[in-house]
Formats: sequence, structure tokens, C-alpha cells
Amino acid sequence: MPSTTKSMLDTYLESINLDRARLAAVIDALNACAQACTACADACLSEDMVAELTKCVRTNLDCADICTTTARVLSRHTGYDANISRSLLEACAAACKACGDECAGHAGMHEHCRVCADACRACERACRDLLATMS
Amino acid sequence: MPSTTKSMLDTYLESINLDRARLAAVIDALNACAQACTACADACLSEDMVAELTKCVRTNLDCADICTTTARVLSRHTGYDANISRSLLEACAAACKACGDECAGHAGMHEHCRVCADACRACERACRDLLATMS
Amino acid sequence: MPSTTKSMLDTYLESINLDRARLAAVIDALNACAQACTACADACLSEDMVAELTKCVRTNLDCADICTTTARVLSRHTGYDANISRSLLEACAAACKACGDECAGHAGMHEHCRVCADACRACERACRDLLATMS
Amino acid sequence: MPSTTKSMLDTYLESINLDRARLAAVIDALNACAQACTACADACLSEDMVAELTKCVRTNLDCADICTTTARVLSRHTGYDANISRSLLEACAAACKACGDECAGHAGMHEHCRVCADACRACERACRDLLATMS
Repeated sequence: MPSTTKSMLDTYLESINLDRARLAAVIDALNACAQACTACADACLSEDMVAELTKCVRTNLDCADICTTTARVLSRHTGYDANISRSLLEACAAACKACGDECAGHAGMHEHCRVCADACRACERACRDLLATMS
Repeated sequence: MPSTTKSMLDTYLESINLDRARLAAVIDALNACAQACTACADACLSEDMVAELTKCVRTNLDCADICTTTARVLSRHTGYDANISRSLLEACAAACKACGDECAGHAGMHEHCRVCADACRACERACRDLLATMS
Repeated sequence: MPSTTKSMLDTYLESINLDRARLAAVIDALNACAQACTACADACLSEDMVAELTKCVRTNLDCADICTTTARVLSRHTGYDANISRSLLEACAAACKACGDECAGHAGMHEHCRVCADACRACERACRDLLATMS
Repeated sequence: MPSTTKSMLDTYLESINLDRARLAAVIDALNACAQACTACADACLSEDMVAELTKCVRTNLDCADICTTTARVLSRHTGYDANISRSLLEACAAACKACGDECAGHAGMHEHCRVCADACRACERACRDLLATMS
């Protein structure tokens, strides 16, 4: 079943500079990562050892905010400005890398960090792959 | 395949007052609706007849913002406050109803409004069903 | 000096159902509260006793998200829907009340909670005052 | 009167790598720009000539989202990662430049675009000044 993201992209009548299937996959990865990071930040707050997870909470909050904003910007095609998309994708890949590294460091201890690290890795890869096709 | 939302909820060790499968389905419906509304607002801007779609753009923007915020609040379980979740779900159902009605009015003419109306209806239903289990 | 919010409202040519000075004051209170809550959540994370502040972090995150979304919705006048504004203002007042109460409980110990509680109280009052003029 | 932003920063007990007065000014510029862009997008939708302003609406929406996210990230100091702040500030300056240019092109015709262009210019300058102190 195609995601709502791909269904909506398929209804767009004007031309889009990027491959639609790839673009939909990136947007889905961004939304999944934002959701995982929001949930992981809260799961960290519920741990007895929250004092050792404060950097993880912070990185999760940054990554969630940046992924949500990047998904929104990539969902707009009217008056497209490659410069904004490109620099935002760079910032987003950096945030996903930092959050993926941080969560991976706790993955052996906390299952929520393991699942979140996977979502961050997948999102970072999707952002970098899209960037590679834009230059 | 379970969504990332459900996988993350399954890692949460503390108790949650709501059924996890249902909660994951609501959060997924909220994120799908936010994505559809963001895309529909932009697709409306690309139409020749944009002047007849300005209310649709506005309702889409409201609905996207409210659905994203509601998904975030429902993804947090630490220090849960039923009062905030409930009143926000009421506001979200109202926004989905308004946006679903507005998009449905253009669904015969614009395929993006048709797909978006479906996402709004599904999300409104999911919010109301969850509200019914909270009282 | 008028805030940017009021300057922008003054440029709006169409009629607005609400008093512009009051509306600008509410939007400014919402943005100030969102900012205070975002900063307070992070300041809580930096405290040695973060384990006793996890509910405060969570309430701050909810309040920041809801205030930002409410400020956006109130800044839109095209195709105005009183029903959405009203229900969102109710949810926002509830979030400000909860966050103001939570922060007030830590105000004697943490200056960031004292300043944030004040911002939440002012914002809750502004939301309720606006609601009173809408019915 | 100091802004809430500066009052909150003054309560932060741990060290911050950046000058607090400058940081508060950047965050205030980001929030003011986000507010102006949200209002300008809506004011464009209310114009008879909206068909000529669709790129302006889109750029306003991007700029509002990116400024709000950047203000949030800069408001967090726990587990600070200069790499994320720097790349996000670059993306934000690019968005403010694009939106400032677009709005300036309509400033003679639409007062909301004139006020918004000023907010974008001020915000772009604040982002670039902060970036200069970070390298």
C-alpha cells in the first residue's frame, strides 16, 4: 500500500525536479524519525537513570524539530528554491547523525534508543542520498 | 510490518493508560493527516484557480499544525495529564472536520483535495474514537 | 515600540473579528510562553536533580508545542473558523494552567521555573480573556 | 524591559559557549521573523492578486518553519553540539535571505511584505553575526 505521502505526490500536476518515489521515501523517513525521536525523548525521561540520558533527550528534541521542518519544506514544490532544501538537508543529516550516534551508545541498555538509532540512521542515509541527486 | 510508532510504544516500560495498538493507530493517522494537509496546501498554491482555494490553504495549514502538535503530545507518557490530551483531541477533531469538509468540497475538481479529505476524515474518526475511550 | 506582531496585524486590509491590539497581545504572550517553556525544559535537563523534574520537562514540551500552534492559528484570518480557534484556545489555556502549576511548585528552588511560571500564568490569562470576548 | 528570552537565559546556571545578550537577540529575531512570515503568508492569501503571490506564500511558510526550529535548537544548551547549530543557522540565513528578497519585491505594493522583508533582513543579519562568532 502506498503511503499517504506518495499518494499526495502523485496528485501533483506540475513538474517536480526530483524523483517522486525517492522524494516520498525521504519524507516518510523524516516523519518516522521525528516520531521516534519524540517518543525516545519521553522514554528517556521515564527511566530511573534519566540523569545519564539528558544529552540523549536534548539530541532527540533537536532531531525531531529539524526532521519535521525538513519534511514540510520538501513537501512544498511551488516556487522551489534548491538552495534552501539543500542547506536544510545538510543540517538534518547532521542532526540525524548526532542523534543516531547518541542513541546507539545507549542501545544495549535501552530498547527505545535502539529502535530510535535505527530510525535516525535510515533518515540520515535518505537525506544524504537525496542530496547526492541534487548536485 | 508495524509502524515505527508502534515499535517505539512497545519499548515503553512504564504503564500507559490507553490501549497501545489504538494509540499507535491514532498517532499514525495524525502524522499522515499532517503530511497530507501540508502537501494539499502547496498543491492548492500551484493551481491556476488558487484564488478559489485560499480558504482551503488556510484550513490545511491549521490542520497540519494541530495534528503535528497532537501527535507529539500523545507520544508523551511521563507525567500524563488527561485534561490536556482530551482538550487537544477535541480541538484536533474540530480542525480535521473543518479541513475534511473544505477539501471534500473541491474533491471532484482536485485529486489532492480528494486524497486529503480522506486523510482528514480518518484522522477525525481516530481522534473521536480515542476520546470515547478516555471518558 | 509596537511588536512585529502588532505591526503585521496593522497591515491586514480585510476585517478581523477580534480587537487587533488584544489579539496582538495574546499572540505575543503565546510566543513568549513557548519560548520560556522551551528554555525551561532544557534548564531542567541541566539540573543535578533532573529526576525530580521530569514531569516539569514534559509539561514544558507540551505547553511550548501547543502555544506555538495556537499563535500560528490566531495569526491566520483568511477563511476564519471561530470553532477551531475557540477549542484550541481552551486546550492552550489548559496546558498553560498545568505548566504554570507545575513550574510554580519548583519556583522556590529553580529561578527558571519561577520565570516560566509567570509566562504561563500571563499566557493562560490572555487566552481566557480572548475566549471571553469570543462567545 | 528585557525580553522573556533574556530573562530565561539569565537563569541558566551552567556555562553557555556564546554571549548571552547576543544569543537572546538572535532568538528574539528568529521568533519575530517566524511570526511575521506566518502573518505575511496569510495576508498574501487575502489579496485579490494572490495568484501573483504564491511563491511569496511558500517562501514565508518555509521561513516560518525554519526560524521556529532554529529558535528552539538555540534555546537548548544541554549536550550542546556546535555542528548542528552551525548548519541550521546556515539553512536559516538562506531561508531568511530568500524570503527577504521575495517580500522586498512586493514591498511597494503590499505593506505586509514590506514589514516582513524587514524582519527577514534583521533575522538573516542576526544569524550571520552569530555564525561569525562561532567559527
